[in-house]
Amino acid sequence: MKEDRFYMPVRVFSCREVVRSHAKDLAKLGKKALIVTGRHSAKACGVYDDICAALDEYGIGHALFDGVEENPSAATVMKARDFGVQEKADFVIGAGGGSPMDAAKAIALMIRHASEGRDYLYTKDADSSTVPVVCIPTTCGTGSEVTAVSVLTNEVKHTKGSIPHKIFPDLALIDGKYLAGASGQVLCNTAFDALAHLYESWLNADAGPISRLIAEDGLREWKKCLPVLKKEKQPDPDDYDTLMRAAMLGGMAIAHTGTSIPHALSYALTYHLHVAHGKAVCYFLAGYLKEADQQDASRILELSGFSSAEEFHTAYRLCCHDLEIEDDQLLPVIEQSCKDVSSNPARCAKAPYPCDEDTIRRIAFYARKQEGS
Amino acid sequence: MKEDRFYMPVRVFSCREVVRSHAKDLAKLGKKALIVTGRHSAKACGVYDDICAALDEYGIGHALFDGVEENPSAATVMKARDFGVQEKADFVIGAGGGSPMDAAKAIALMIRHASEGRDYLYTKDADSSTVPVVCIPTTCGTGSEVTAVSVLTNEVKHTKGSIPHKIFPDLALIDGKYLAGASGQVLCNTAFDALAHLYESWLNADAGPISRLIAEDGLREWKKCLPVLKKEKQPDPDDYDTLMRAAMLGGMAIAHTGTSIPHALSYALTYHLHVAHGKAVCYFLAGYLKEADQQDASRILELSGFSSAEEFHTAYRLCCHDLEIEDDQLLPVIEQSCKDVSSNPARCAKAPYPCDEDTIRRIAFYARKQEGS
Repeated sequence: MKEDRFYMPVRVFSCREVVRSHAKDLAKLGKKALIVTGRHSAKACGVYDDICAALDEYGIGHALFDGVEENPSAATVMKARDFGVQEKADFVIGAGGGSPMDAAKAIALMIRHASEGRDYLYTKDADSSTVPVVCIPTTCGTGSEVTAVSVLTNEVKHTKGSIPHKIFPDLALIDGKYLAGASGQVLCNTAFDALAHLYESWLNADAGPISRLIAEDGLREWKKCLPVLKKEKQPDPDDYDTLMRAAMLGGMAIAHTGTSIPHALSYALTYHLHVAHGKAVCYFLAGYLKEADQQDASRILELSGFSSAEEFHTAYRLCCHDLEIEDDQLLPVIEQSCKDVSSNPARCAKAPYPCDEDTIRRIAFYARKQEGS
Repeated sequence: MKEDRFYMPVRVFSCREVVRSHAKDLAKLGKKALIVTGRHSAKACGVYDDICAALDEYGIGHALFDGVEENPSAATVMKARDFGVQEKADFVIGAGGGSPMDAAKAIALMIRHASEGRDYLYTKDADSSTVPVVCIPTTCGTGSEVTAVSVLTNEVKHTKGSIPHKIFPDLALIDGKYLAGASGQVLCNTAFDALAHLYESWLNADAGPISRLIAEDGLREWKKCLPVLKKEKQPDPDDYDTLMRAAMLGGMAIAHTGTSIPHALSYALTYHLHVAHGKAVCYFLAGYLKEADQQDASRILELSGFSSAEEFHTAYRLCCHDLEIEDDQLLPVIEQSCKDVSSNPARCAKAPYPCDEDTIRRIAFYARKQEGS
């Protein structure tokens, strides 16, 4: 038997008005919070106001850093760290999608190690302790609120990837209401990212019985939301909670296995061609399923509401739309991504089947062929 | 929506030879281990030798306290604490069924608070920090390796119950091989205890979507083992792993909800009439299911392989056998237990349906009526 592991030390609460009802838990974490958000959505969806009200209730100070871009850079993390130190913040609250939450973890690390420079973010085997960090998701994809992963754009090396520090949030507060204002596009792109986490965790060389149970729970929850994603049903509050739960379970699953080939292939599409993360990942997902043991693939497809990889891919195109990037731009990026991933043995070893360059290319070009057909 | 919570900070590893392969993780916890076991089984099943070999490999000292009785008393905990302090033990490894693991948590608490007396075990809102504690289950019932609960017998007050300190183990090491030497009776009594955890957690006023997903995962795993428990199939190593996993998931589920009426009713049967814990709990389980919303009951019965509460109860009698206690002994104990549970509002509030004394009595006497019929 493969070693089976479980480790998930995040304290998770999920309910309507969770931020206000857990004001006391926030107040316990420090005297002044650095609130880390993107530029607009945290104010638009109400989470910023909720956080301020919760902190104000207990007289906890707060300062806002709302400069986190999509796919946040190490430079942004350092800027926020300097601001946090200047403001004497002693804990960090990241609210938003994956970008502000991932940035919040890295900022909490760098506030704790305030005398260190940017290189510390990328230093392996260094002390990963942080000031307390809270994550509050407002999209239903990343699962970052329950993972130890912080994905940053390295603007010096022109790449995007996880920093070596493993940083679990101390507290995750989850409220489906923050999805109510999200566009259909954001809902779909992030929900399909969650689905990719669930598939890639289940079809993973590091999967064990426990991580697969978690992934299967997530797939069952995800399936319930498919009519909403396909716009066959108007979302209600329960649907938003279910979407959040599916994303959280996807996070818990990849916290144990990591992601696999589709994520690896996707980063270049996002970095060079600005394709939204979830949309970019799922572009490679049907190809990944086609290469897998077909009994395994059928099991996870069925749990999530699809009878075949083709049916999944059709739903993906319906919900997330085609890339609409000209071949002369798209193909060189995919070609390069295939080469990069093929030449990275650790990446290839994540697939539960042998993954040579030919296999990677079949995965990478599966969607292109479907579009052409 | 009811508040949904998840908190499970235990680091769990599960594989064949898990103790030997995680020797390094044990060695990190301190310089000398107090190994806490029952009188015989830890040596018989091989876990004691595995622990010694793992510690010896890294030059970590160890001392054995093998005096934990079934349903361990506070007096035993204090005796072990004094021995551990005398031996300068700085971490505790509990190996066995629920009794040594529950005792190990309490002993780790009292070693950490070495100047405190027995009353500290029962002091509410006191500091619950402990020296590091590891749990290694050798039965498939309690799930104590992933709960914060320590159930002790209070030999002064003549009761059995959880101490107020919440103590999660730092590390849980799970290896199905330790079940290979267990008697069919121990397998059944403990596996049915795990089933009770799964049912009582699902049918619980404090259940939320996440705790129910965990319970449902456990029920699916438990179902796979039913042929082994019914002796229709010889157990193989995979069956032992599955039994251990079902028990662990039962532990994770009750770590979020606590147990309910059947556990509450069972303690008197165990304390006064020496009925094995799992057998005593499940004696009241069909009655608990009969009172529940029948759609809910059907769902969890079906997930665990039963078409009705009656069919479950028949399987329980087949696997765990009847109590075989004369009515003049049995009935007064059940009567008293009904009164005790009915007069405890916190206990009654755990059921997901109104639970007055009449309801409690129907639950408590259901099995008696079945036997009579």
